[in-house]
Amino acid sequence: MGLRKLETCLSPALYEADLHSGSIVVIIDILRASSAICTAFENGAVSIIPVAEVHEAKEYKSRGYLVAAERDGFVLDFADFGNSPFNFTQEKVSGKTIVYSTTNGTGIIKMASSASAITVGSFLNISALAEWLIAREKDVVLFCAGWKNRFNLEDTVCAGAFAERLMNSRLYSTICDSTLAALDLWALAKNDLPGYIEKAAQRSRLKNKGLDDCLHFCLTPDFTRKIPVIKNGILVDNNL
Amino acid sequence: MGLRKLETCLSPALYEADLHSGSIVVIIDILRASSAICTAFENGAVSIIPVAEVHEAKEYKSRGYLVAAERDGFVLDFADFGNSPFNFTQEKVSGKTIVYSTTNGTGIIKMASSASAITVGSFLNISALAEWLIAREKDVVLFCAGWKNRFNLEDTVCAGAFAERLMNSRLYSTICDSTLAALDLWALAKNDLPGYIEKAAQRSRLKNKGLDDCLHFCLTPDFTRKIPVIKNGILVDNNL
Repeated sequence: MGLRKLETCLSPALYEADLHSGSIVVIIDILRASSAICTAFENGAVSIIPVAEVHEAKEYKSRGYLVAAERDGFVLDFADFGNSPFNFTQEKVSGKTIVYSTTNGTGIIKMASSASAITVGSFLNISALAEWLIAREKDVVLFCAGWKNRFNLEDTVCAGAFAERLMNSRLYSTICDSTLAALDLWALAKNDLPGYIEKAAQRSRLKNKGLDDCLHFCLTPDFTRKIPVIKNGILVDNNL
Repeated sequence: MGLRKLETCLSPALYEADLHSGSIVVIIDILRASSAICTAFENGAVSIIPVAEVHEAKEYKSRGYLVAAERDGFVLDFADFGNSPFNFTQEKVSGKTIVYSTTNGTGIIKMASSASAITVGSFLNISALAEWLIAREKDVVLFCAGWKNRFNLEDTVCAGAFAERLMNSRLYSTICDSTLAALDLWALAKNDLPGYIEKAAQRSRLKNKGLDDCLHFCLTPDFTRKIPVIKNGILVDNNL
């Protein structure tokens, strides 16, 4: 078997769905959605239903679901809590299905729906997910969620960290400039990740809203070995 | 006066025209369009007419214009020459108007048409253009042409080189992650630019087609002090 192909997409605006139908797509949105999702599964969540619209989230709430919903960092009044990973405690989420309101995330899941599989990556599950990917015999696309269709540093650096692990397995090749850039930025950032991320625009946005308490946590490797995967549009723990 | 804003767009797919109506847009497509354009003006070209379609280029040819036209690196049969900067010699272009066939470039010029001004940047004119930009009192967008709407390393690194000069003037501020990434990649590349670009996908594409003879030239700083600008859809030397 030849080497598997590794590619990186630096923003949803750059995703080319028709090129990736045979690949595993790793959605990376570390500040904070993909970190929150990994945390929820570690703390015993059964599944997470991503919904695009506020009214959908509200409808689920009226049917008794636990709802995590924010817009621009602010918790919606009907929701149980916002999107910080710190909200997804064992006490709150163990054994539960959570409805997660995310316009951006839902769009990305839809864009990637033709892929062979869709999973969710963050520093929190990096070793387990990298091993899981390597154990598959598939091409991989590291899909950075970015911010409002823009490139962002934090997701790119995390993609670089995944790329380093996959390339080190010697099972992948890449001719993708985005992957090469992500690897280089990760190499610059890895010795002091919080220090590097300090300059990122999203870091300032979270700080300005007082939502940066979870920042160091989101940059912590290997908090969990959970592999969230999308099945029928819903996030579930791959091991269950 | 406050600081001017510096932003970088890493691919045409990421360009947000409505945000940049007051800015000067620098189009960067160093392998090879923006390098060829800088070379043409240094060698005495009067103007360059960018055209999108092959049939338009052919029509201009029939009217006696000098035509540079390629598709995927191959010179079109009716054209005078292809898009390598080495074709734009003084002997061929001095005193002439050149028709330049470029689907990508024409699209980008159209996208940027609402900007305050559009110019063309490469390593070949980096000092002169950076000084010219600094002398204006405008926000700047470094617009990487990329490749088929994708991110590429070489234009990003060149954007980083421009960003370094502008930021060093202390007249600009940036909260743009793309600019920060470009600055970091340039910092990695600057001590051995040809060595760094060796891994770029476009470098391999040019090599495979035997079109890489101009590579080192395209990475040479300050071959010219010309500032190509778009006026009424046509590239002209700003000093004329």
